[in-house]
Amino acid sequence: MTSLSNLLDGIHLPEGTAGLEAHEALDLLTKPPGSLGRLEELARRLAEISGRFPPRVDHAVIFTLAADHGVTAEGVSAYPQIVTAQMVENLLRGGAAVNVLARHVGAKVVVVDMGVAAPLPAHPGLRSCRIADGTRNMATGPAMSREQAVAAIEAGAGLVETEHGHGLDLIGTGEMGIGNTTAASAVVAALTGAGAEVVTGTGTGVDDEGRRRKVAVIERALATNRPEPSDGIDVLAKVGGFEIAGLCGVILAGAAARIPVVVDGFIAGAAALAAVRIKPEARHYLLASHRSTEPGAGHVLEALGLDPYLDLGMRLGEGTGAALCIGLAQAAVKILGEMATFKSAGVTDRSP
Amino acid sequence: MTSLSNLLDGIHLPEGTAGLEAHEALDLLTKPPGSLGRLEELARRLAEISGRFPPRVDHAVIFTLAADHGVTAEGVSAYPQIVTAQMVENLLRGGAAVNVLARHVGAKVVVVDMGVAAPLPAHPGLRSCRIADGTRNMATGPAMSREQAVAAIEAGAGLVETEHGHGLDLIGTGEMGIGNTTAASAVVAALTGAGAEVVTGTGTGVDDEGRRRKVAVIERALATNRPEPSDGIDVLAKVGGFEIAGLCGVILAGAAARIPVVVDGFIAGAAALAAVRIKPEARHYLLASHRSTEPGAGHVLEALGLDPYLDLGMRLGEGTGAALCIGLAQAAVKILGEMATFKSAGVTDRSP
Repeated sequence: MTSLSNLLDGIHLPEGTAGLEAHEALDLLTKPPGSLGRLEELARRLAEISGRFPPRVDHAVIFTLAADHGVTAEGVSAYPQIVTAQMVENLLRGGAAVNVLARHVGAKVVVVDMGVAAPLPAHPGLRSCRIADGTRNMATGPAMSREQAVAAIEAGAGLVETEHGHGLDLIGTGEMGIGNTTAASAVVAALTGAGAEVVTGTGTGVDDEGRRRKVAVIERALATNRPEPSDGIDVLAKVGGFEIAGLCGVILAGAAARIPVVVDGFIAGAAALAAVRIKPEARHYLLASHRSTEPGAGHVLEALGLDPYLDLGMRLGEGTGAALCIGLAQAAVKILGEMATFKSAGVTDRSP
Repeated sequence: MTSLSNLLDGIHLPEGTAGLEAHEALDLLTKPPGSLGRLEELARRLAEISGRFPPRVDHAVIFTLAADHGVTAEGVSAYPQIVTAQMVENLLRGGAAVNVLARHVGAKVVVVDMGVAAPLPAHPGLRSCRIADGTRNMATGPAMSREQAVAAIEAGAGLVETEHGHGLDLIGTGEMGIGNTTAASAVVAALTGAGAEVVTGTGTGVDDEGRRRKVAVIERALATNRPEPSDGIDVLAKVGGFEIAGLCGVILAGAAARIPVVVDGFIAGAAALAAVRIKPEARHYLLASHRSTEPGAGHVLEALGLDPYLDLGMRLGEGTGAALCIGLAQAAVKILGEMATFKSAGVTDRSP
């Protein structure tokens, strides 16, 4: 497995002319220039990121990383902690929302135990990268050690490296973890300087009082741990989660391998912010799937400089928005590959 | 073929409990209630419109209606009129954007000649419903007679009736016609009372001067013809187009058959506005695919009371947005049909 420092050394600005080649090719197709809007922009970015013209999306994988959070002891979620393990089993049986949407677009879901508290039955589809039986309660001390954060990042990167050998050409970021909107809000607050009040929402569905409790817990976690905003690893360790750190590794490995990474929703967005804090060049490899209804999602997108492709009022996580975005990416690639040109179709281009 | 009056008599408010059944079923699935946002709303609407639970999207058809516009004589388009016929040939060969996107989602494209000016070679895929060799120039008189408008509506309805026999369960509305944003802007201005200035855009890409010319032409057409806003047929006849009237028929026939209709973009939106003016109950059968960048698109959506699912900066027409929306509709139906319930998956529902 690649060490974190080697991983970071492998991330550079995307080079080459594939993005421009895509732009040129799009303007030859039988449509007014730019008239497919963001679908064209998506095609260009897939080419630019991968360095490949034409770009392809034949082997999209959604990495759905699961872990538990000690902070659930503070009563921050509408669901009990055991639901993380139960949902991992549901994911492995193919009954969760991301399974359905991934099948719809022909993407693979890789389900990963990054540190679920309850024991999970062995399953051929489950990748185990357990760092510990859930994080510690960040309201009273660091969620994990720095070593654990680095191990989680490296484990996430290792997942990408394995799939890269099978032709991986588009990465979706998914997660499952009761309590993880609390951790993500803390990470986003620490990294952006925004107040806990503005980046904290209702998660899976706590009421107003629950949300106030979440905000107070996050403020306590930040005051107790004092994460260093310039140090993404420190932030992940003190107020993050194993799946968030793991996704940070997935993102960094995608950037190193020049594979476009679809950042999906608020929690994966927190992981992406950490990844970009650790290695600023990584941001050029990111696409945002959708605008989550979590109130911190807008802050994350703005900080990443990303404009999401979808705005469907979704807030489920798991990689569900990534799946829908993968469908758009496939469509964008087919536009480049299958449309006729003005010349080939004998269509008159523009009035003289 | 059903007469227009019989068609209108067959349109009623959607009855039954299928929409509520879908709502109930969605809340049993392994996700926080409502967390899939508009995907859930889409599943509910497909059930409510069709009266079928579970709803299905197995035979989606995009009706791409083509026609020419006499008003192109006023220099309102960036492309010459011959491009309509050339693009019909491109559509028949499968090289246009809507072909690519329809294949991507497994939808059928029905290409229809509603009145293209240039002769079209025979092709097994081409449905001919030619009303005339293009409309007359609406700047100097009515685009067509009232009888022609009714014939175009009835022909559009006939297209749906034919496909209904093959299991049609979702309708997409597409169009191709050089000059048709000018006609659509005139229709929207007439039906909504908005000024030509606010509902007229650059279409396929005229410059500022071209847009000012379009606005002036539309103002002249409205002043010359004085379409009666309360009479959708009168508006279509005086300032519409054969493909716009045909799409109005497609929409009305969808409503009569309780088949959800995806209104796609500005021109199909103008057709939908006319359909709803002719039969207000028709609006309950409509879904909006995307928010076109044409400046009048927002007026149309507001007047129809529709919130589009996508906002991708598209402005191509042909049914391209409908194709992407059909993909979302399929996903929504699969969520209902394939996700595990809390009970079936053994997942704990909510903290006590």
